[in-house]
Amino acid sequence: MTIIRQPITGFSNPAVKAARALREKKHRKREGRFLAEGLRLLTEAREAGIVPEGLWLGQSRDPHPLVDALERAVSDEGGTIYETSTDILAKISGKDNPQTVLGVFADLPTGLARIDRSRSGIWLVAQSLRDPGNLGTMLRTCDAVGAGGLILIDQCVDPFSVEAVRASMGAVFTVPVAQADWAEFVGWLRAGPGQLVGTSLNTAHDYRGADYASPCFLLIGNEAQGLPEEYEAACDLLVKIPMLGKADSLNAAVAAAVMAYEVLARQR
Amino acid sequence: MTIIRQPITGFSNPAVKAARALREKKHRKREGRFLAEGLRLLTEAREAGIVPEGLWLGQSRDPHPLVDALERAVSDEGGTIYETSTDILAKISGKDNPQTVLGVFADLPTGLARIDRSRSGIWLVAQSLRDPGNLGTMLRTCDAVGAGGLILIDQCVDPFSVEAVRASMGAVFTVPVAQADWAEFVGWLRAGPGQLVGTSLNTAHDYRGADYASPCFLLIGNEAQGLPEEYEAACDLLVKIPMLGKADSLNAAVAAAVMAYEVLARQR
Repeated sequence: MTIIRQPITGFSNPAVKAARALREKKHRKREGRFLAEGLRLLTEAREAGIVPEGLWLGQSRDPHPLVDALERAVSDEGGTIYETSTDILAKISGKDNPQTVLGVFADLPTGLARIDRSRSGIWLVAQSLRDPGNLGTMLRTCDAVGAGGLILIDQCVDPFSVEAVRASMGAVFTVPVAQADWAEFVGWLRAGPGQLVGTSLNTAHDYRGADYASPCFLLIGNEAQGLPEEYEAACDLLVKIPMLGKADSLNAAVAAAVMAYEVLARQR
Repeated sequence: MTIIRQPITGFSNPAVKAARALREKKHRKREGRFLAEGLRLLTEAREAGIVPEGLWLGQSRDPHPLVDALERAVSDEGGTIYETSTDILAKISGKDNPQTVLGVFADLPTGLARIDRSRSGIWLVAQSLRDPGNLGTMLRTCDAVGAGGLILIDQCVDPFSVEAVRASMGAVFTVPVAQADWAEFVGWLRAGPGQLVGTSLNTAHDYRGADYASPCFLLIGNEAQGLPEEYEAACDLLVKIPMLGKADSLNAAVAAAVMAYEVLARQR
């Protein structure tokens, strides 16, 4: 089978503009597409059965069997392969030293209805998360602990932003993400088995050795405010992670991981 | 005592240029100074007895007793207080919505010799750390677990970069940081008590319930490469954090926190 590569030489080419626009959330929403950068991320995607609609290759790339495999997959699925200069890849990615492999993907589904809670004993639930790096890191942690997925509550940062995708190290393609508001989430949660666990300073319950059920939904609050009081009140269990220093909170992705590994150890 | 505020109206004022330059590492190194932004960070610093040489206040700031306390402290120490516009603060900080309180601090000492290992049973040691957010997050975790400090091995990102300072949430002022190369660190470590623990995939030893001594030095490898083989070989104990998914590593700051909380639980 012949691989057809479309050469792109002009900065004003509509495909360049369209790809570049995906760095901004409003364009991602409108187009229903997102960007992922680098051979490693795109290979994770391909191995998860997710192939970009558009594959961008730098002329300066080194030959690599994983690039060949990507090209075959994109070609098989009827996607487009573009070949272009480092300068144009820099324009698309907004970086001086762009990756030589870039993909434009159709948005992945994020409906709560597709979450199957029987798939895992651990789920992460993040409320009003603001930082894309934290979001991506939580996805990476979900992968590591075998969590079922990440449920984003209320107004969270976009899971398909370039920064979140990068921080996930590919887990955005393998770990299910759902988006819902609080009322919708609680309705869904209470329609089946599941323990809602919040981390809080308002409890004497140490997180270590608490009584975790399965499936356990670990609720992590916003970076600046933590969990709203009513959200804490809705939890089946509140636990406290020891804070021995001056600060009263951990980084959100760190708190999620400390909790997730504790639950994993208890459930194993 | 009268507080004297120096009004700054010009973008080309040398004090503006000097403060702004501190966003770049080469200028920080040359000047031996760094920037910290926001009332919360500067209050953490003041409470730790560290006062900025230069305090920048936005004209649009709200009155606040913590700002008053900062002004008094800077004045007492003979520092300079500047009062200026939001636009000039935006220029200094490089952000559209700058904080209304900014401080220029003299570098904190980072010599290994000042580290007193008897101060804590837990220490973090990071090797060739690249991401300032990870570095700041590790400092925040050090504070939370009561770790003695963070030792930076080989070529790590600058602990006084704006991003690292911000991610530390003030812990950069309360948690000792040391910088050393590997040979220097190992020489120092072996001159006293201390267990060097590395996380690795090359061991069957689960991190959970391993035999941690005190003081325990937790060695975390570079984000992309992990620990070099010879560094692993120098460890007294290698442990593995379970990785149940597709990826073979956690975010470096997450791995540090999962380890630190495990050691904390064992030592308590």
